[in-house]
Amino acid sequence: MAVNSPVPVPSDLKAVAGIELGHAEAGIRKAGRKDLLVMRLAASATVSGVFTKNRFCAAPVQLCKEHLGKRVTGKPIRALVVNTGNANAGTGESGLANARATCAALADLLQCDPAQVLPFSTGVILEPLPVERLQAGLPQAVANLRTDNWFNAAMSIMTTDTQPKAASRQIQINGQTVTLTGISKGAGMIKPNMATMLGYLATDAKVAQPVLDDMLKYVADRSFNCISIDGDTSTNDSFMLIATGAAPVNITSSDSAEYKLLLDAVLDLAQQLAQAIVRDGEGATKFITVTVEEGRDVDECRKIAYSIAHSPLVKTAFFASDPNLGRILAAIGYAGVDDLDVSKLDLYLDDVWVARNGGRNPDYQEADGQRVMKNSEITVRVKLGRGAAVATIWTCDLSHEYVTINADYRS
Amino acid sequence: MAVNSPVPVPSDLKAVAGIELGHAEAGIRKAGRKDLLVMRLAASATVSGVFTKNRFCAAPVQLCKEHLGKRVTGKPIRALVVNTGNANAGTGESGLANARATCAALADLLQCDPAQVLPFSTGVILEPLPVERLQAGLPQAVANLRTDNWFNAAMSIMTTDTQPKAASRQIQINGQTVTLTGISKGAGMIKPNMATMLGYLATDAKVAQPVLDDMLKYVADRSFNCISIDGDTSTNDSFMLIATGAAPVNITSSDSAEYKLLLDAVLDLAQQLAQAIVRDGEGATKFITVTVEEGRDVDECRKIAYSIAHSPLVKTAFFASDPNLGRILAAIGYAGVDDLDVSKLDLYLDDVWVARNGGRNPDYQEADGQRVMKNSEITVRVKLGRGAAVATIWTCDLSHEYVTINADYRS
Repeated sequence: MAVNSPVPVPSDLKAVAGIELGHAEAGIRKAGRKDLLVMRLAASATVSGVFTKNRFCAAPVQLCKEHLGKRVTGKPIRALVVNTGNANAGTGESGLANARATCAALADLLQCDPAQVLPFSTGVILEPLPVERLQAGLPQAVANLRTDNWFNAAMSIMTTDTQPKAASRQIQINGQTVTLTGISKGAGMIKPNMATMLGYLATDAKVAQPVLDDMLKYVADRSFNCISIDGDTSTNDSFMLIATGAAPVNITSSDSAEYKLLLDAVLDLAQQLAQAIVRDGEGATKFITVTVEEGRDVDECRKIAYSIAHSPLVKTAFFASDPNLGRILAAIGYAGVDDLDVSKLDLYLDDVWVARNGGRNPDYQEADGQRVMKNSEITVRVKLGRGAAVATIWTCDLSHEYVTINADYRS
Repeated sequence: MAVNSPVPVPSDLKAVAGIELGHAEAGIRKAGRKDLLVMRLAASATVSGVFTKNRFCAAPVQLCKEHLGKRVTGKPIRALVVNTGNANAGTGESGLANARATCAALADLLQCDPAQVLPFSTGVILEPLPVERLQAGLPQAVANLRTDNWFNAAMSIMTTDTQPKAASRQIQINGQTVTLTGISKGAGMIKPNMATMLGYLATDAKVAQPVLDDMLKYVADRSFNCISIDGDTSTNDSFMLIATGAAPVNITSSDSAEYKLLLDAVLDLAQQLAQAIVRDGEGATKFITVTVEEGRDVDECRKIAYSIAHSPLVKTAFFASDPNLGRILAAIGYAGVDDLDVSKLDLYLDDVWVARNGGRNPDYQEADGQRVMKNSEITVRVKLGRGAAVATIWTCDLSHEYVTINADYRS
């Protein structure tokens, strides 16, 4: 059960003109489940993506980068294909060949060039991709292509997720309605620089390529790059921003008011989709926001926030609703900020002032800590007292269920 | 139950001339358990120590550093005092005052200067130290001082440990018997740069202070600084090497054959005591050795080894005996070695060659991986193919029991 995250229903999800989605049951790992998704884009679409920094990045990630690098006028990206059940990572040259064969097969069906297709995979690492089953499923996915198919799309990219993750927004720009819909997946192996996390966010606005690239980077650093479940960074993480150009709104500069309107809506939706992953974190019972303030720079704030968010001791204390808050101080202390003066540091748990000048706040009562720890959503706030930088990370607790899920994932 | 780690019996543990140990039940956190230890040293003893690098280092750690810094001829360290049940960390100025008061009280009883006493604490962080109870327990501990009291000493520093950790060695140097006995504690919040880990290793050899300092650093970097249970680095970690000078063996230079003989024995014993902590890791069911070879430098080998050792996904796979070994590749990939060429990388699990040139070894059979994963002791060996540096880390798996212990630690 995800933490305070209602399951979307199909009617919540608005079609985005210029993008069609088709799902299939290809039996990639197990029969009888949606495990293949094709997205077809209008010729007017621009696409921008960020990917895992894991050195073992998967074959499809390598190919995405190659195909995005090849875009030239007249050969825009026309399709994305996603499979679950197999990550096609740690698979060497044959993995790359399989990813190429996947693109070629879909390009054949859609009458485009293989370099106009972006492939994505998620699932088990170090296993050969069953590319024949994947290819055999493509015609079914293409036959299913519809603009109002976002709910099935969200279903078809799930792995250990307990629920599909999808949401829509509509905003007005220059009197025109602009629609945004996104889907995401991921529940484990989630950390900084992306996760076993896939995110696809599409709008029907027209956005020039360099402007879309700017927007993607800004948004990723404030959404999908701010979540952590277990500190593991996947080989396959990808977040794609798609502007189909089907609506009569054309954004050509990052300095425009139109850009700002769209950016706010994209960021809001991306944060919801990113947080949905944490709320559905493997075994999660609590949603934790960690905010580190008054740092010298964002980097040190993020270091400390992640140190707290990754500490198994902090995470099990949240699971137990036990205000064993010294564990948070310990995690701050080993975060690697070597010149940190702890005597300037304050710690709050929601509204409760726990530590003051690096020691226990004399007014702190354990009963107050206990009250907050019982909540399903908790904010940890650290003030470093040495600057004006701020960073926020979203994470969850560490429960028995996490161990159960990850000890049994393949069985 | 610790992994392949028989409980020592009192008769295993040799007295070390020049050091007496006395325990007490001071009721610091709970009544009826040994929670206080005093060690009294001969006037001829030299002492060397390494401590946590956590910025929230505990008050006793701060005081240890101060007192070790104050040593001058005629005022050697004469006693160590250790309490469990409270870490006296995150306690600010009053915590430091309490640690000073502890030293003063013991100095009074032993007729020495407070600066000749080193204090140590382990337990819950962010709680005031009940210094009156500690002081009230000191006379009982002093009354118990005996050279053959190592077993009780090991018992009295336990926290979530399931068994005492202690061992002895005897070696011959220049025809003289030299004895070494050590104790350690710790089972959680264990990572690099020490752990909620206390280690005390004493020998009756006489070792000049600068020589002992060299020996300590060499040994710590190859024993207590090579273990990880959960990636949390405690506020209180300390490893102390004591040479009482009571035996007729005098080591005055790091270049001597005598030094080498003693060093080997100290390292061997320190590794056993450090590994005993991992074997007794909270909830541990497996003992894992991670060796990274062929690196450019030791630092990058350690980075990768720790990335594997800290990955919750890798650790749960070990717990489940599931050869989901792609998780190890993912952990290598996000270790932060940014120019790593994974196409040169090989991975072995014991004798099984799992990955070759960055991809699945074509000869690898899952049955072979499964066979190894069922063992209670497993070696993960990574060859980076880019140099001659090596690093080894010892760790354990992540089980349901870990969550149970840490969700319930204070209750």
